[in-house]
Amino acid sequence: MAPCFLKDPLMPVNRQIHLVSRPEPALGPSAANFALREAAMPLPGAGEVLLETLYLSLDPYMRARMYAGANYAVGAALDAPMVGNTISRVIVSNHAGWPVGTIVESAHGWQEYALSDGAGLRRIDPALAPITTALGVLGMPGQTGYTAMIRHGRPGPGQVVLISAASGAVGTVAGQTARMAGARVVGIAGGAAKCAWLTDTQGFDAAVDHRAADFAAQLAAACPEGVDIYFDNVGGPVTAAVLPLLRAEARLLVCGTIAVDRDRPGAVPTLPSMQELLSAALVKRLTIKGFIYTDPDLMTLEDEFRANVGQWLREGRLPYREQIVDGLTAAPQAFLGLFAGANFGKLLVRVHPE
Amino acid sequence: MAPCFLKDPLMPVNRQIHLVSRPEPALGPSAANFALREAAMPLPGAGEVLLETLYLSLDPYMRARMYAGANYAVGAALDAPMVGNTISRVIVSNHAGWPVGTIVESAHGWQEYALSDGAGLRRIDPALAPITTALGVLGMPGQTGYTAMIRHGRPGPGQVVLISAASGAVGTVAGQTARMAGARVVGIAGGAAKCAWLTDTQGFDAAVDHRAADFAAQLAAACPEGVDIYFDNVGGPVTAAVLPLLRAEARLLVCGTIAVDRDRPGAVPTLPSMQELLSAALVKRLTIKGFIYTDPDLMTLEDEFRANVGQWLREGRLPYREQIVDGLTAAPQAFLGLFAGANFGKLLVRVHPE
Repeated sequence: MAPCFLKDPLMPVNRQIHLVSRPEPALGPSAANFALREAAMPLPGAGEVLLETLYLSLDPYMRARMYAGANYAVGAALDAPMVGNTISRVIVSNHAGWPVGTIVESAHGWQEYALSDGAGLRRIDPALAPITTALGVLGMPGQTGYTAMIRHGRPGPGQVVLISAASGAVGTVAGQTARMAGARVVGIAGGAAKCAWLTDTQGFDAAVDHRAADFAAQLAAACPEGVDIYFDNVGGPVTAAVLPLLRAEARLLVCGTIAVDRDRPGAVPTLPSMQELLSAALVKRLTIKGFIYTDPDLMTLEDEFRANVGQWLREGRLPYREQIVDGLTAAPQAFLGLFAGANFGKLLVRVHPE
Repeated sequence: MAPCFLKDPLMPVNRQIHLVSRPEPALGPSAANFALREAAMPLPGAGEVLLETLYLSLDPYMRARMYAGANYAVGAALDAPMVGNTISRVIVSNHAGWPVGTIVESAHGWQEYALSDGAGLRRIDPALAPITTALGVLGMPGQTGYTAMIRHGRPGPGQVVLISAASGAVGTVAGQTARMAGARVVGIAGGAAKCAWLTDTQGFDAAVDHRAADFAAQLAAACPEGVDIYFDNVGGPVTAAVLPLLRAEARLLVCGTIAVDRDRPGAVPTLPSMQELLSAALVKRLTIKGFIYTDPDLMTLEDEFRANVGQWLREGRLPYREQIVDGLTAAPQAFLGLFAGANFGKLLVRVHPE
């Protein structure tokens, strides 16, 4: 039932994309779990600011938030804006610390406007880098790639580093972090265009298309000496193909499972049993590490990440790609495309012009 | 064809158990891969000693050595004594460093006598502890349990530690190490007698029989708050049952796979897929660590292990069990019994009286 204020064409509204149901049994190609809703334009009270959303970030981890079960966090609420990170501009301010015009990064979800008392806002300096990078290579994805590669991967000269979903923001930064450390870096991506970009623009030593019929053979050929560090963003059959290539004392960094619906891992019936992984861990003395960028041992590297990756970006040593779709209402279909590999680079939704 | 010296009843012989074929496709209940052979009594040359085997150690890891494929090490040679650790006495010495009567630990395999130039011998002081402990709680198994629990488990007060094959030498020392650190310790073992010994004699907080029909339910009841450290000596269905109990940031220490023929992990068809383990690693930020006691980061704890576990033993704070079978020819069947859980405590073969 629409609230009555919608009857007044002069009353500004806050358009939102709500999560209205949960995937059942798993997320497919339909956007039926999302719906456009309109709410009253929020009015900032004392000490509050009104934020105008400029960009939404669409990230694979959000799929898990669509389910009710606890994951990293509890599931996103139904009949409320879908959760997600955002870049916004302060357009009304009752808070001296956040004047009108300030650009901020926060997690205000899929809506055009939001209120804030300043909690959870991170100031973005547009003079340092394009503000969209605050959701990509200089944001959560980049921080994940950098800090986990340094802390859990420990790359160095003579090591072979393999990265899946390598053309995304996490993969890009993870790969460059390993390259800067002197490692040989091989990327896995979907399709010839992404693979060519990894070798030609990113400077990766090799790239392999996971859609190729002879993917496993190509992967083995690209890593003739095996793999010391596998930074895994996908899971599923790609990871199964990597397993035989892991060398003694290799590190398997479990960053994401975009290839597999995390809440339904049993739905990939052709994978080897968990014992294959445990036996490989034993015989090869592997370290398999799951993590999230907010882990304390990764957060201690946050300042180092901003300094180093910011410098690489300014020096032109960190090529990155963004794919920006226009308009809040484009978010659901663009989001679903993530799981088909439809995007090339960090996926964003432009909600209002900069 | 027997060598001609066997024709002379006055010539002493060195009886050996040879590995004469490899398990195909996997090790079963038959001892057909082993055969008793007789060799000439070896004669020590200059700088050498003759060792009389007192005890053989029978350990689960030896199964993997029966295969040709590389594992930790290459497979054991065919038509040669089966490999394994031993306690011996020097009975002839041409080496001033190793006088007659010295008790040593080494890896001279399944035979009655062996030569050594001193390389790889470790002197055992019978005054400190029963010499059999040099193959158990004070030997490789105990060192594995202590060093991995300390380094990779990091137990402390408030933590819940779960150990499979808990009544063996590795499990006993791993468990006491966790208890000394203040953790709550739960053991998994096969049968009521082992479980009772774990709680009544070892002082574990709880023990669960993996042969019980409602094992998973009993395990969950024994760990109502979940598990922080799982020290896994078995793999297979037991490990699958533990997986849902692991808490956030839990450590899964992959020490052994006695429940699964390591060279044939696919032969356990009812286990969840590897993705279940990867997804759990991601969502719970697990650390899964395979290791061997000779890893450099574990070897740095060797002196600490000998000091601490030796002291616990002298103070009576480390109960342990041994199961000793008599005679070299008993080795094959006793060894096969390991994989059926037939032994209770560290399994040894007495080859010559002390």
